[in-house]
Amino acid sequence: MNKTIEFYFDFSSPFAYLASERIEAIAAKHNRQIVWHPILLGAVFKISQQVPLTQIPLKGDYSLRDFARSAREHGIAYNHPDPFPIASISACRATLWLRNHSDEALNAKTTEFVHTVFRAFFAQGKDITDVDVLGTLATSLDIDAVSMKAALGEQSVKDALRVEVENAIALGIFGAPFLIVDDEPFWGNDRLDQIDRWLSQGGW
Amino acid sequence: MNKTIEFYFDFSSPFAYLASERIEAIAAKHNRQIVWHPILLGAVFKISQQVPLTQIPLKGDYSLRDFARSAREHGIAYNHPDPFPIASISACRATLWLRNHSDEALNAKTTEFVHTVFRAFFAQGKDITDVDVLGTLATSLDIDAVSMKAALGEQSVKDALRVEVENAIALGIFGAPFLIVDDEPFWGNDRLDQIDRWLSQGGW
Repeated sequence: MNKTIEFYFDFSSPFAYLASERIEAIAAKHNRQIVWHPILLGAVFKISQQVPLTQIPLKGDYSLRDFARSAREHGIAYNHPDPFPIASISACRATLWLRNHSDEALNAKTTEFVHTVFRAFFAQGKDITDVDVLGTLATSLDIDAVSMKAALGEQSVKDALRVEVENAIALGIFGAPFLIVDDEPFWGNDRLDQIDRWLSQGGW
Repeated sequence: MNKTIEFYFDFSSPFAYLASERIEAIAAKHNRQIVWHPILLGAVFKISQQVPLTQIPLKGDYSLRDFARSAREHGIAYNHPDPFPIASISACRATLWLRNHSDEALNAKTTEFVHTVFRAFFAQGKDITDVDVLGTLATSLDIDAVSMKAALGEQSVKDALRVEVENAIALGIFGAPFLIVDDEPFWGNDRLDQIDRWLSQGGW
């Protein structure tokens, strides 16, 4: 099995979305496999005493400009969602249900599902807090929506997300996207080029 | 006169230091003149309701690793100072005294002084809150230390710093380094490469 890039994200994070659109090319270049780790920034922010970026005076206004500018630079569709931020718990659980599934065919759809949900929220203005919307997105990828929606209420799936969040906090993760490459932590979409150089050079 | 890159910084900001070591090459590449704007992050953080990066749970520990790693990548000497952060008010006033001076020979030493003070703090472990230390650094650049120390107490110099901080807040500046290029704002050392591309492409 290839070595990994551990990609921690919340579906409500604009910079995690932007990074998700570029990380596969970096992973492919270095023969790395991406492991998707959906987490809840709300839980993480309680520990790290932070508030959503857009709610910080001055910094919030700048961040909106920065999201759009960074998206334009890389040709990524971006429409700042309203409402924002949102509770991504159902989307996170759906992702973990796929990622941890014993059925390899379902398992293999995890990456496509992550992209589909991110784009639905940040490019297409869809309400990804709505399980029926998530069901429709699943159907578009030939994932059985009824099974997926049922899974969202299962204790094992709820536990999987709780464990992801607890593990993330234990690893010192305080934001998104947060990437771990061979135990080296990198926070932020603006670290992607640095990760690329890090992998090329074997660190420094 | 060349067009400018407006460089807002606090001498207590690690990322402003790292950016100060790289911005001249970018400015030279695009025939830009750097205008140094020392500001007090403490005053800015009151408006933007922030605390120093290193004091944020989880994020603080990561930031120390990130400072050192970013410095190593670019071959910049870095020893995280103790105590940190510090009150840079005297160093800021000294910089503005030089930058605004009617004597062009003194004026021309502004950039060298900024580098010298930054390196004294972040590479050489010197206490740049001490006006005698600043005086010694000034002397090393053939700047008259007695005149400089006297200037630190002058109302016009104090006012100059107050105005810089007020203007920065009015411009929406909430952190350091903060760079403005043709009215386009960029926050963070990790935006330097983006500024370089922005200037090469004339924006996007």
